[in-house]
Amino acid sequence: MSEHKASVLLVGGGSVGAIAALNIESSGQAAVTIVCRSNFQAVLDDGYSIESCDHGSLRGWRPSSVVNKVPLVADGLHFDYIVCVTKNVADVPPPVSDLIRPAVSPGKTVIVLIQNGLNIEKPLLAAFPQNVVLSGVSLIGANEPEPGFVQQDFPDTLFVGAFRNQSRDVADEKAAAEDFVKIYSAGGKTQCSYNADVGWTRWRKLVYNACLNPICAITGLDTGRIRLADGAVEGLVRPAMAEIVAAAKACGHELPETVDMDMIEMDPLTMYLPPSMLSDVRKGNFIEYENILGEPLREGEKLSVAMPTVRVLYHLCQAIQWKNKELKGLVSVPPKGSFVAPVVEG
Amino acid sequence: MSEHKASVLLVGGGSVGAIAALNIESSGQAAVTIVCRSNFQAVLDDGYSIESCDHGSLRGWRPSSVVNKVPLVADGLHFDYIVCVTKNVADVPPPVSDLIRPAVSPGKTVIVLIQNGLNIEKPLLAAFPQNVVLSGVSLIGANEPEPGFVQQDFPDTLFVGAFRNQSRDVADEKAAAEDFVKIYSAGGKTQCSYNADVGWTRWRKLVYNACLNPICAITGLDTGRIRLADGAVEGLVRPAMAEIVAAAKACGHELPETVDMDMIEMDPLTMYLPPSMLSDVRKGNFIEYENILGEPLREGEKLSVAMPTVRVLYHLCQAIQWKNKELKGLVSVPPKGSFVAPVVEG
Repeated sequence: MSEHKASVLLVGGGSVGAIAALNIESSGQAAVTIVCRSNFQAVLDDGYSIESCDHGSLRGWRPSSVVNKVPLVADGLHFDYIVCVTKNVADVPPPVSDLIRPAVSPGKTVIVLIQNGLNIEKPLLAAFPQNVVLSGVSLIGANEPEPGFVQQDFPDTLFVGAFRNQSRDVADEKAAAEDFVKIYSAGGKTQCSYNADVGWTRWRKLVYNACLNPICAITGLDTGRIRLADGAVEGLVRPAMAEIVAAAKACGHELPETVDMDMIEMDPLTMYLPPSMLSDVRKGNFIEYENILGEPLREGEKLSVAMPTVRVLYHLCQAIQWKNKELKGLVSVPPKGSFVAPVVEG
Repeated sequence: MSEHKASVLLVGGGSVGAIAALNIESSGQAAVTIVCRSNFQAVLDDGYSIESCDHGSLRGWRPSSVVNKVPLVADGLHFDYIVCVTKNVADVPPPVSDLIRPAVSPGKTVIVLIQNGLNIEKPLLAAFPQNVVLSGVSLIGANEPEPGFVQQDFPDTLFVGAFRNQSRDVADEKAAAEDFVKIYSAGGKTQCSYNADVGWTRWRKLVYNACLNPICAITGLDTGRIRLADGAVEGLVRPAMAEIVAAAKACGHELPETVDMDMIEMDPLTMYLPPSMLSDVRKGNFIEYENILGEPLREGEKLSVAMPTVRVLYHLCQAIQWKNKELKGLVSVPPKGSFVAPVVEG
């Protein structure tokens, strides 16, 4: 670390972003500028109220700076890190690269993607070919029941490593990742570790994300009920997980034999927790199906792995997303015929 | 036909039942007792109001008798036919056989199942081994926007044939089917024909029912939008249909090569018609997924047909049904833990 405080732009000021900001600021080694959207006014006026299993109770807590859009970096200034904790909805513009572009200093800023799914670094490396891009795989339970009020019920565990950028030295990438881990961990309230094998970690999390996320989102059942519902675990969850494990293996990542049951039993049954994709469907938000289903499917099928279950889940999510795009005016359909619509007994 | 009027018990007094009752009574050859449930009082008080492409406008029309439950047949009396047009939800009691049992005269009453799906005759033949059981495959567009008010927008086309009962003569079964066709057609306002190959006709309709029905129900898209949505036809509908066609073939039923596009294009796109299973999901009704997905899947897989798409759709429908069973109190889950449920970033 240099002597000056590192400057961090944190894009996404919801519950996960707020806890990340708190971890980073707690280090005393970095100043965070947080980009809030829907909760901007609440956080600006009153700061965050936080009830956290890692940090205890805080009232009126603010990072160094609260803004409502990604700032344009002026000459001579730059962010050392841009940490993205927004949803990454690949099929709905703008792409993350466009969102953060005004704040990226080419070759300088380290971009940290604390986001789900596979191949999320590719558009960033294409847009910023001289920058280090880090992978953050997060396990955290947090929500924001009202603007600026953050509840964290599950500890934050973050795995950080570098996505390989061919135009940078591996040593530089590793150093950047280790520096970020140092800052994130220094406050001593969280688990953040350097993780060399980014691919393995991402595939492992996909065993949960590419399977429980869409199955719960499509059926409307939470992670407790999906374990109780007739045939759902044996007929849907485990077949989908087996396909992801096979695709991971074909891509060179051998996952533990118990990974399916580890993931199925991760959320306590009687907590009836909704995975994030089910929460998104319930709120009418877009879902991150391209990165968490589409990319693993394409990677697996490219290597001749049979993935019939994941393929159907992918296309069902695509259709559900399309329905939401119509509701939000991103796609339109021809006007209705003049006919009174009957129920077709079909 | 004997000289007396045939006595027909019609179970299910909704839109499809009302049109069936009208066709049968129009013959002058049969008297219909209709069993109504939710619309019983409306039909009893005011009769049906019907706006029909086949029959024109009728006000205050009633079949010979309107009742609110299946009657118990007294000694010496019997129904010549019991026509079932209710939903057939195999996994939710009571089974159709129990529902109609009080009115069935063993060896005498001809049971007509105007219902979707495969193997629906098996529980009936098991319960009434001496009775003729007929298959009715119906194509009709009708709905009931308010109790007793029936709109029919698509003509009624009904194919009738016998399910094979080993304890009866084939000739008797055929005669019973032809007699029913005669009664149903005599009014001259509808298409009803004798159809020897019941299996072929049922499998053909499954190309629509086992594919468009669940895909639309799961995604919330109607039959117009499913044709417009990104990837839905090529990624979901056609693969599912190809599996049903392959299963039909393995079972000895060769369907036309164009059957997939025939079914996809059957409903005019800009009518945006919901298939019946989507309507059921929207209304919170149970869905008929066992007969229209489970049975074809089991028949196909028994003969080693690969049906991965239909298999996933089946299990998703099963989970959606389970959710509805919980809502209606047919299944229960352990009490919730004391924990405040967070959104798991998973």
